[in-house]
Amino acid sequence: MVQTSADPRVQQKVLEKKREILDAASRVFRRRGLQSTGMRDIAAELGMAVGNLYYYFKDKEELLAFVQEGTLEGLLDLAVQVRKNRLPADARLALLIEGHVVLLNEGIPGSLAHLEVEALREPWRRKVQDQRDAYERTFREILEEGMAAGVFRQTDPKVTAMAILGALNWTVKWFRPDGGKTALEIGRECAELLVRGVMA
Amino acid sequence: MVQTSADPRVQQKVLEKKREILDAASRVFRRRGLQSTGMRDIAAELGMAVGNLYYYFKDKEELLAFVQEGTLEGLLDLAVQVRKNRLPADARLALLIEGHVVLLNEGIPGSLAHLEVEALREPWRRKVQDQRDAYERTFREILEEGMAAGVFRQTDPKVTAMAILGALNWTVKWFRPDGGKTALEIGRECAELLVRGVMA
Repeated sequence: MVQTSADPRVQQKVLEKKREILDAASRVFRRRGLQSTGMRDIAAELGMAVGNLYYYFKDKEELLAFVQEGTLEGLLDLAVQVRKNRLPADARLALLIEGHVVLLNEGIPGSLAHLEVEALREPWRRKVQDQRDAYERTFREILEEGMAAGVFRQTDPKVTAMAILGALNWTVKWFRPDGGKTALEIGRECAELLVRGVMA
Repeated sequence: MVQTSADPRVQQKVLEKKREILDAASRVFRRRGLQSTGMRDIAAELGMAVGNLYYYFKDKEELLAFVQEGTLEGLLDLAVQVRKNRLPADARLALLIEGHVVLLNEGIPGSLAHLEVEALREPWRRKVQDQRDAYERTFREILEEGMAAGVFRQTDPKVTAMAILGALNWTVKWFRPDGGKTALEIGRECAELLVRGVMA
């Protein structure tokens, strides 16, 4: 990966370039799949020499790790915001669901690459897995609070959390920016479906 | 791929061997991810020479195509069974959800490989995509019937179908046979969550 510079302007420019690369990578991943996309395909999409691409990301795995770390940091920030507010559990769960769908589909480039933790090597894999576990815990906690308050029916919070997360994560496989609905609209429909599904 | 033999006993043996290979491939996919698993890793898991593995599958893509075709044939059979019966829409949706989770997690080896249509080349990709579209249509039809009958609330059947399918497909990422619950139990909990979510 590119050497970090002490100059914040340089850091900012590198970050912008990386986001541009991820945008291009997303488009190629959608067309060709994660597995059959190589660094050469991403460079071609950018009209960039592949050597130049290697300056920003050493290999595809480093690029995937960067996407996933960025995604999970965004999701963990969202979880902190949602936890802070004092709404009842059902309203908090709806906010978390909507925010998740928006973040995955509009907030951060990378699309399909968000989810492929299996594609990562150590130490990235461990780190991303730990972040993911922490994020999943937020769902279980809200479900447990809602059950304790009698707002939600009794379910296995682990299974329910994973079923909800599955519905949300899968949106990156089918959401299209030009599909006639915004990510927020899709997020709200998911929230309606899934929050109703757990109500007492 | 292995040459088809006219002898049904030979065909049966080849099919059994292919299933054994898929079982082994599933284990390696879970450990290393789809992307970083090579034919060599699968052969090693089987204690088989890689040349012998190539006798059954020309490359990893052919193996993935075989898994996905098998999965979708199973799901399409399930859809036919569910459509045939005369239960109300909510009961049919529950049956389809339960059957889907069981089939993906117990019925057919391959686990993670079921879902990676992006990893396929043409003509497999087109074929699998067509089968998948046909299967998704079954969900939309049941949703539309339930809405017309007043059993289900009014939703966008496309978004609802994809949210439901996401929850179900994602189970292959987290279901573990030794996790304390059967695939059928997980399927029932998913059905409870998702059918409640669409009820009027």
